[in-house]
Amino acid sequence: MTFELTKEYLDRIQTAIDAGDETTLRADMDELYPADISGILYELDTTSARYLLSLLDKNVGAEILVNLDESIRDGFIASFTSEELAPFVEEMDSDDAVDLLNEQPVQLREEVIGLLNDREQARFIIDLLHYDEDVAGGLMQKELVKIQVDTNVNQCIEEIRQQAENVEKVYAVYVVDEAGKLLGFVSLKKIVLARKYAKIADIYEQDVVAVETYRPVTEVAEIMQKYDLDAVPVVNVQGRLLGRITIDDIVDVITEQAEDDIQAISGLSGEVEEDDTLWVRAKAQLPWLLAGAVGSLMAATVINGFQSELGKIAALAAFIPIIGSTGGNVGIQTASLIVQSLSDSSGLTYSLGQRLLRTLVLALVNGAVVGLLAGSYTLLIGEPRLFSVVGLSLLSVVLLASFMGTITPLLLNRIGINPAVASGPFITTANDLIGIGVYFLIAEYLLAEL
Amino acid sequence: MTFELTKEYLDRIQTAIDAGDETTLRADMDELYPADISGILYELDTTSARYLLSLLDKNVGAEILVNLDESIRDGFIASFTSEELAPFVEEMDSDDAVDLLNEQPVQLREEVIGLLNDREQARFIIDLLHYDEDVAGGLMQKELVKIQVDTNVNQCIEEIRQQAENVEKVYAVYVVDEAGKLLGFVSLKKIVLARKYAKIADIYEQDVVAVETYRPVTEVAEIMQKYDLDAVPVVNVQGRLLGRITIDDIVDVITEQAEDDIQAISGLSGEVEEDDTLWVRAKAQLPWLLAGAVGSLMAATVINGFQSELGKIAALAAFIPIIGSTGGNVGIQTASLIVQSLSDSSGLTYSLGQRLLRTLVLALVNGAVVGLLAGSYTLLIGEPRLFSVVGLSLLSVVLLASFMGTITPLLLNRIGINPAVASGPFITTANDLIGIGVYFLIAEYLLAEL
Repeated sequence: MTFELTKEYLDRIQTAIDAGDETTLRADMDELYPADISGILYELDTTSARYLLSLLDKNVGAEILVNLDESIRDGFIASFTSEELAPFVEEMDSDDAVDLLNEQPVQLREEVIGLLNDREQARFIIDLLHYDEDVAGGLMQKELVKIQVDTNVNQCIEEIRQQAENVEKVYAVYVVDEAGKLLGFVSLKKIVLARKYAKIADIYEQDVVAVETYRPVTEVAEIMQKYDLDAVPVVNVQGRLLGRITIDDIVDVITEQAEDDIQAISGLSGEVEEDDTLWVRAKAQLPWLLAGAVGSLMAATVINGFQSELGKIAALAAFIPIIGSTGGNVGIQTASLIVQSLSDSSGLTYSLGQRLLRTLVLALVNGAVVGLLAGSYTLLIGEPRLFSVVGLSLLSVVLLASFMGTITPLLLNRIGINPAVASGPFITTANDLIGIGVYFLIAEYLLAEL
Repeated sequence: MTFELTKEYLDRIQTAIDAGDETTLRADMDELYPADISGILYELDTTSARYLLSLLDKNVGAEILVNLDESIRDGFIASFTSEELAPFVEEMDSDDAVDLLNEQPVQLREEVIGLLNDREQARFIIDLLHYDEDVAGGLMQKELVKIQVDTNVNQCIEEIRQQAENVEKVYAVYVVDEAGKLLGFVSLKKIVLARKYAKIADIYEQDVVAVETYRPVTEVAEIMQKYDLDAVPVVNVQGRLLGRITIDDIVDVITEQAEDDIQAISGLSGEVEEDDTLWVRAKAQLPWLLAGAVGSLMAATVINGFQSELGKIAALAAFIPIIGSTGGNVGIQTASLIVQSLSDSSGLTYSLGQRLLRTLVLALVNGAVVGLLAGSYTLLIGEPRLFSVVGLSLLSVVLLASFMGTITPLLLNRIGINPAVASGPFITTANDLIGIGVYFLIAEYLLAEL
């Protein structure tokens, strides 16, 4: 029942575009949802995409533009004049309009706002432009249905009717006092079932979860998930109702945050995708690769400092990989668990002391197991004198990496950097480096012949 | 406006529980949302938690049980007899009831179903137990409002009234024919605004996105996100309406999948959290640590095979870390991008050939940059004869790791394993191992004195 874009379909569309066959194109697009048409635009060149868009209703076109991936939308919008863009912006929800305008040069943005016929929409947009995009105010939309507490159900239905065109999804009607302060809400279900002349004051729900404009969007996401909300009203510090955030925007926030975390862990900087240009991909990959390389070259300097030891016992070199990779792996595992617990604030969390104590005990177990495995290997290759060196080094490396894996994300989080970076290649390489230093120091200390 | 659990609050509750002070407890819990009470239960022992739960209404208790984290709920539910559990299950949405019962031993499950007074609920649950939990059928709930196409708005409102208690959130009323086949829907907003005697046949929306019971939940999540749906109807192959999936369940699916991916990348097996017991954490960490260790010991064997070469040029050992970590890092970066593109099926995707070609070009750039950096370092430490060995090895390692990072997730995805595993420590170590083999082979080949 859902649309799948094929090469054949795309060829057909391209042929119709080249032939200027408006009838076919209009008929074809009529059968698709805007989100599907967005998928088609990705595959067309700018001229073809603009032509296709020009054949559609402005409100469909607006939804298509909203659905486009930001990275692609920017380039596409750049080909529009403010006169061409304004009719689409007119049709968008205020939050989507602001998202789009925020990506544009200031001049284009101002011109488009000036060209809007719907002055309420213009005012909504100007209001929303004030907020950072990572707080509730930057995510909310101004479109909502609100009603005074001293009205009745019939008046409420009238209000919905007047707002119906503007507010695409009505989950609830918000109840406010004369000063616009949020008092509660009435669900749409309740309105359907209520008597026509029932007083709003008698039927509204006073127990309402609202968020302030300055709340970080990640916190809003958590609240909406925790309380299973479809929409959450946004208020200012005086409790005045300013807007609402709907669940579809929160789904986007959650998806983006997960992608950010995975990119941070994977050592990719910036929001990059597989189908970006190779130049964008290289720019995303190289910084962390080079940071990792510099770390490893520092390890190389350490190893070089022990050249005479290596000359005497060449087998020492064989354990460089396990020391390095174990440190890195333990560091990633520990940091990931801390990151996960930071982003999930249900229940009480451990104090730093408790965390470190638990980390210590766990590291002793993990370190002992890996140390014994590697120690046995030294016997296997006939280097029993390395048993304690390798075993003790691994135990120390696991301890250190667990400690670093616990501390680093907490520290990054404190100073406002995505803590998932602590699982990335730079930290991994740092663990690697420290591990190798420890290894050679233990070797030097324990082996009489060095 | 939202509740934050503090140590002081918890102490107060515990004291009231110990004193059996029902009045205080009831009053306190009355002010909280069920999701907040779930957070409190985490911190109580089983006896206290059960006592607190027994003071609350069964429908509040049911919601609390639904909100509990699965790992903790299992242990808690184990203390219930089927007679104690049934009244809670009675109050749950069918999908939540099935989730909970699926975790229980078969006998308890059957007994609870037998004890339900609401036979419709029992039938719903039995229906849903047939489905795997990772397909649409396993995620859907039976509770929904549906109406025959030949009725009018007034009859529709009556139907909503009758279902109101059962169906917590009504987004739309589904329209079916006499055989129960899904024809379309009417949004609640439309019902509010329609004339009482308007015919459903005249006002319903025929353009409806539905999913079949066998669709994987990840696909359902994608569809709901793409089309911004609050709820999606679930049908069987004949198009008969069987249930619906609401957006809050999809939010959970998305969150869980992101957590799974991050755990796979981080080398954690099973769903583990920071506050799990140390035994659970060790069990989650050790398998991958040991797998990584075995890989590194294989690398050790390779290095040992080149002992005489190392004896002659000890500086060779210094570059083991950069060879290993660069391979690992490039592998993770590449695999992560592939995993991301696999989970995002908008637009056309590349063919395997195109992917490999792009990977090749990118790897040449990345490899050349990292190779030149490390090559310069050989000059810095006065080992110019290692320039081409290290540079060429890094270029090869980046090429190989990019290739592996592209192929492995595609392969894992094909055979139904979470492709994010390809960014995990085992694959990273494999890249490490291959890199070191390549390094020593190139060294042997290029250096005349070996």
